[in-house]
Amino acid sequence: VSPIPPDDRGLALGDGLFETVLVEDGRAVRLAAHLARLAAGCAALGLPVPERSAIEAAMAEALARAGPAAARAAVRLTYTAGSGGRGLDRPQQLAPRLVATAAPAPKPATPARLVTATVRRNELSPASRMKTLAYLDNVLARREAKAAEADEALMLNTRGQVACAAAANLFWIADGALHTPALVCGVLAGVMRAEVIGAAGRLGVSVREATAPAETLASAEALFLTNALIGVRPVSSLDGRGFAPHQLAERLAQAVQ
Amino acid sequence: VSPIPPDDRGLALGDGLFETVLVEDGRAVRLAAHLARLAAGCAALGLPVPERSAIEAAMAEALARAGPAAARAAVRLTYTAGSGGRGLDRPQQLAPRLVATAAPAPKPATPARLVTATVRRNELSPASRMKTLAYLDNVLARREAKAAEADEALMLNTRGQVACAAAANLFWIADGALHTPALVCGVLAGVMRAEVIGAAGRLGVSVREATAPAETLASAEALFLTNALIGVRPVSSLDGRGFAPHQLAERLAQAVQ
Repeated sequence: VSPIPPDDRGLALGDGLFETVLVEDGRAVRLAAHLARLAAGCAALGLPVPERSAIEAAMAEALARAGPAAARAAVRLTYTAGSGGRGLDRPQQLAPRLVATAAPAPKPATPARLVTATVRRNELSPASRMKTLAYLDNVLARREAKAAEADEALMLNTRGQVACAAAANLFWIADGALHTPALVCGVLAGVMRAEVIGAAGRLGVSVREATAPAETLASAEALFLTNALIGVRPVSSLDGRGFAPHQLAERLAQAVQ
Repeated sequence: VSPIPPDDRGLALGDGLFETVLVEDGRAVRLAAHLARLAAGCAALGLPVPERSAIEAAMAEALARAGPAAARAAVRLTYTAGSGGRGLDRPQQLAPRLVATAAPAPKPATPARLVTATVRRNELSPASRMKTLAYLDNVLARREAKAAEADEALMLNTRGQVACAAAANLFWIADGALHTPALVCGVLAGVMRAEVIGAAGRLGVSVREATAPAETLASAEALFLTNALIGVRPVSSLDGRGFAPHQLAERLAQAVQ
């Protein structure tokens, strides 16, 4: 794999995007949805959309390099604005860089213990709705969670509204309906988030994309997390309050498998 | 220079810090202040502080690689959390990575035209007070400024308070006093910001570190930007409103030279 020069703008400034694609038994799961989101991110950041053939070649190369195929692997695609420019300003001629890495992606065996992080999600930046290389706030939120002996962080946005987990979208069940923060709250348009919303619709469960203060979760019957690698992962506690397994969460987990 | 592997956490997640040091006629200017800020950032991010000898060796190597010494060069130090870990979580044993690049750093010849960006500075993340590799919000703010045919972006924080420019601290002069946003507004503790505050004190000018709504700037007599490379750069306009040169800004520019 090509190494990255130290003047790459992805490294230097977080100027770029990524995707994390689940590969099950050699098959890239929901690749079209990942590539559509990458293309939308490129449009927002002013980057050319990489060719699908180049992406597929990089993925195959990364999987081959990672050795004997794991039943479940994660391929991480990293797409940067390339080298050049002066400080924050990009060069006139962009030469973006695409790299891929692969690693085993075992499914978490346990539900997640959540704590609310102090680091907030910046819904007043378009980057909060994209999978960008500037992910440090999420790293810091996760560090807070681990320091509190939890698995994941609940991130609020700057207005104190529920946004997401550090590396997952968040759903909650209340009043017989499924709720998830609206994208405008500073939320990544998760591939699995969209799958779960679709699956709930097919099960006849109403879904509300909500702008909800943190206190809203106090009356939730259940919480769960979603992303492309974990699917649906139940939450067993939030800030020490416990949640029992919930039938709807289990049905949705099966529906998106 | 060692290339960066694609699994480096600085590239993948913005998990790291940087410094941009001015080198004038071969001498690193205010290096101690840059290294102190880097050390403070390391403490906040949970990274070991790099050895000064390693930093100086990397800087010298970068300058040598850049060829015949420019009278004014900028050395960019990039310090990442290294490779490893699973997703957002760092590995148990950190192996941070330090790289440096050098480039000529001509001083801007003209005052800066500013426009207010829509992208906001997230004062509710500690990263807003550090020079981290997750700098995409600033790249986006600068892109807005360039699209509006301006030179730099004024960034407000999520409460609509004045914070900084995309790549500089901001000062304004009003009521005979010098003002600059307080760090708590989501502001980098700029090396040149501290120099200017010190110089103003020596000139007998009172300095207020302010928490100020954007409208405060409407009554400013003058604005200027500061960073290690530009020193003090006057602002000629903000959102189309013009500013004349101001004697105090000129005195401060000379004082920190």
